[in-house]
Amino acid sequence: MKNVLAEIIVIGDEILYGQKLDTNSHWISGELDKIGVRVIRVTAVGDWEDQILAAFEEAESRAQVVLITGGLGPTSDDLTKPCLAKYFNTGLSMNDEVLKDVTAYLKSKGREMTELNRNQALFPDGGRAIRNKNGTAPGIWMERNGKIFISMPGVPREMKEMMRREILPSLQSRFQTLVIYHKIVNTVGIGESWLADAIRGWEEALPKFIRLAYLPSPGFVKLRLTATGDDMEAVKQAVDIQVENLKKLVGGYIYGYDNALLEEEVGKTLVSLNKTAAFAESCSGGYLSHLITTIPGCSEYFKGSIVCYHNDVKVKTLGVKKETLAAHGAVSEQTVREMAENVRKILEADFGVAVSGIAGPGGGTAEKPVGTVWIALADESQTIAKKLQLGDDRLINIRLSAVNALNLLRQRLNQKL
Amino acid sequence: MKNVLAEIIVIGDEILYGQKLDTNSHWISGELDKIGVRVIRVTAVGDWEDQILAAFEEAESRAQVVLITGGLGPTSDDLTKPCLAKYFNTGLSMNDEVLKDVTAYLKSKGREMTELNRNQALFPDGGRAIRNKNGTAPGIWMERNGKIFISMPGVPREMKEMMRREILPSLQSRFQTLVIYHKIVNTVGIGESWLADAIRGWEEALPKFIRLAYLPSPGFVKLRLTATGDDMEAVKQAVDIQVENLKKLVGGYIYGYDNALLEEEVGKTLVSLNKTAAFAESCSGGYLSHLITTIPGCSEYFKGSIVCYHNDVKVKTLGVKKETLAAHGAVSEQTVREMAENVRKILEADFGVAVSGIAGPGGGTAEKPVGTVWIALADESQTIAKKLQLGDDRLINIRLSAVNALNLLRQRLNQKL
Repeated sequence: MKNVLAEIIVIGDEILYGQKLDTNSHWISGELDKIGVRVIRVTAVGDWEDQILAAFEEAESRAQVVLITGGLGPTSDDLTKPCLAKYFNTGLSMNDEVLKDVTAYLKSKGREMTELNRNQALFPDGGRAIRNKNGTAPGIWMERNGKIFISMPGVPREMKEMMRREILPSLQSRFQTLVIYHKIVNTVGIGESWLADAIRGWEEALPKFIRLAYLPSPGFVKLRLTATGDDMEAVKQAVDIQVENLKKLVGGYIYGYDNALLEEEVGKTLVSLNKTAAFAESCSGGYLSHLITTIPGCSEYFKGSIVCYHNDVKVKTLGVKKETLAAHGAVSEQTVREMAENVRKILEADFGVAVSGIAGPGGGTAEKPVGTVWIALADESQTIAKKLQLGDDRLINIRLSAVNALNLLRQRLNQKL
Repeated sequence: MKNVLAEIIVIGDEILYGQKLDTNSHWISGELDKIGVRVIRVTAVGDWEDQILAAFEEAESRAQVVLITGGLGPTSDDLTKPCLAKYFNTGLSMNDEVLKDVTAYLKSKGREMTELNRNQALFPDGGRAIRNKNGTAPGIWMERNGKIFISMPGVPREMKEMMRREILPSLQSRFQTLVIYHKIVNTVGIGESWLADAIRGWEEALPKFIRLAYLPSPGFVKLRLTATGDDMEAVKQAVDIQVENLKKLVGGYIYGYDNALLEEEVGKTLVSLNKTAAFAESCSGGYLSHLITTIPGCSEYFKGSIVCYHNDVKVKTLGVKKETLAAHGAVSEQTVREMAENVRKILEADFGVAVSGIAGPGGGTAEKPVGTVWIALADESQTIAKKLQLGDDRLINIRLSAVNALNLLRQRLNQKL
C-alpha cells in the first residue's frame, strides 16, 4: 500500500480569532483515515494572501494532497480562489457549466442572480470544477507535478456532500489504496476499562490487518475495527467473524453498528414489536423525551411524557402516592416504580420508563449524594428498577440518566424479540 | 499598542486521524483575542519528534508567543516535554516543587504514586513550571531571545485553569497590552441581517476604539463590543454608553449580557416575580423542558411538563377538545392555545407555555409545510399565540421552537416586572 500523505488547510480569520470552531478538519481527517490517506498536518490561517500562499507552499513541500476549506464565498475577503490561481500561475475565466449550476441553484431557492453570485462562476484555468449541490461556490481540483490541491467551501454541509460524492472516490481510485473496511460496534452501559478487560483476550488475538480503536463518550463506548487488504469480500468476512466473536463476549452491551443511534434502535424495536412507550421524567427534565423525538417517525411508538419536576406534579398528575413520597422520598426505588407504572397507564403505553434522581449541584445528602439516580421500567407483566451512582456534573448526570433509562428499555425490548 | 503575534500548536495523532475534535485552539484563540494578542496560525501535528520540532521552528520564525497543547501525559507517546528540552538545548531534572504538587494531587484522589507519575516532575532546566490544579502534568514556560513557548496539557479543564490563573495575566502584564474591555449583548428572536439593519446607524457611529462582532447561532445573535484604551474605567464607561444607546434601538430583543443564558434569565425573572411555569410540548418533544432544567435550582419555578406527542395524550391527559383537533388539527392556533391554558391549570402553574408544529422531515402539507410551528403562552389574564415558519431541518426546528417559546415567556414576564 502506498503511503499517501495529506494536509488540510483551513482558511478564515474567524477561526483564528476564536469566533468559529473549525470542525471541518476533524471530519475530513476521519474520512481520509478510512481510505488510507494519512493526514500529517492541519493548518489554520487567516484571510491574508501572503499567509495563504505560504501555507500552500509549505503543505506542498510535505504532502501529495492538500485539502483546503473556507474562503470560497463571493465577498472580497474570500481569497482562496484568487490565491489558488496565483499559486498555480493561471488566470480566472467564466466557466459555463458552473454558471449554469449557480443559476439553477439560485432559481431553486427563489433568489436573484447578483453580480457577486455571477463571480462564483469565475474559475481557475486548468482546474476541475466540483459541483456544489448545496450552495453556489464550486469546489476546485488543481494538479501540478503529481501534487493535488482541492479547495472546498467552509460550510460543512456543502463540503461533506462534495467529499462523499466526488473527492473521496477520486482519491481512492487515483491512489489505488488498499481496500479498507470499517465496522463500528456501538456499546452502551459498560465503561471503557471494564469493556477493555472483558475483551482483552479477543483484542490480543485480532489478526494484524485489523486495527481496533476505542471511541468513548458519556454513557457509550464505540469500538472501531479497521481492516485493510486486497479483496473487499475477504476483508469484510474477516471483520464479520471477529464481530461475531465479540458478540459472544459483550453482546448484551451492543446496541447497533456504524452510525446507529441508541434512540433510533429502540424506536425500530418498538416498531417491530408494534408497541409504544411513555416516560415519566424528574431529574432528566425532558432530555429522555428529547432523545427519542430527535428521530423522524417517532410518533409511531412514542406517546408522550410527564415531566414531573415538582412533587405536586408527581402526586396530582402522575398519581404517585403521597405516602410513598413521605416515606421514601422522590429519589427512591418505590417512587420511581410508581412513576413508571403510572405513566404507562395514564398515557396508555405498553412500556413506561421513569427517572428520578439528584442531578446537582445542590440537593445531595449523606444518604443520597448528588448523582444518585433511580430508573425504572414497567410493562404489562413486571416492573424493573435500577439505581445509578453518577458524578457531580449536572449536565452529564442529566444525559447519563436518560441514556441509562433508554438502555433499560432496550434490554427489556430485546427479551421480547 | 504593540502588535503581539501568537501561534498555537496542537499535538496528538488522535487529532490528525479524526478521532478527537480539537476545541482547545478555538478557546485559546478567543481568550488571546480578548487581551489583544493576535493568533496568526494554528497548526496540528502528530506525535512524531521531527514533526513537533519542525512546527516549533516554523512558529518561532513568525510569532513571539507559541502556545502548545497536548503531548504532556506520562506515557511514551507524549513527546512535548522531551521535544521542548531538545529544542531549547537543555536537560530534564527532577523538580521538587512539581513533585510535591503531583504527590499532593494523587493523594487527594486516593491514588498511588507510580514511576510514570514521578516522571511528570522531570522538568526542562531553565523553564518555569505552571501548576496544574486539575491533573498531574505541569505547564511549561520557556523563553529565549524574546520568544516565549508555553506548553499545556491537552485536557481542556486543566489547560483552561492554567490559562486563566497564570498564563493570560502573565502575557497581559508582559506585553503591556492596552486595557481591553468586552461586553457581549445577547439577543434572541431577531435574525442577523434584520438586527444589522436596525442598528446600522448606531454601528456606523461607534467610536474607533470600539469594535463590533456579530456572533450568530440558531435563534440567537450575540453582539460583542471590544474596546481598547489606557484607562479601564473610561473604556468601560464608553462601552456602557453605547450599550444604553443600543437598548433604545433593540432593547426588546436583548435578554442578557456576557455569558447569560436565556433559560437562566427566564428563571431569574420567575424567581423575582415569585411565579412558576409549566410546559405542554408536542413537536419540541421535551427540549424546552430540557433547556429550563439545565439550570440548577429550577425546581423553584418549574413545575413540570406534559410532552403530548400523540394526539391521545393531548386529549386525555391535557384535555384538548377532540372537536378542536378535528376542526383545526394539532398544529393550529386553537390547539396550541388550549394546550397552554390547560397545562397551566393541570400542573397548577402561573404561566403555561405550549408548542405544536411539524418538525419534519415528514408530515408537511401544502397548507402546513414542514417548519410550521405554533407557540402559545397563557397566564391568569390572557393567552397569546404566535406562528413560526421555520426550515426543513428537524433538529434545528426542535431547537428553534423551544427557544422561541422560551422567548415568548421572557417577553411576557418582562411586562410584569
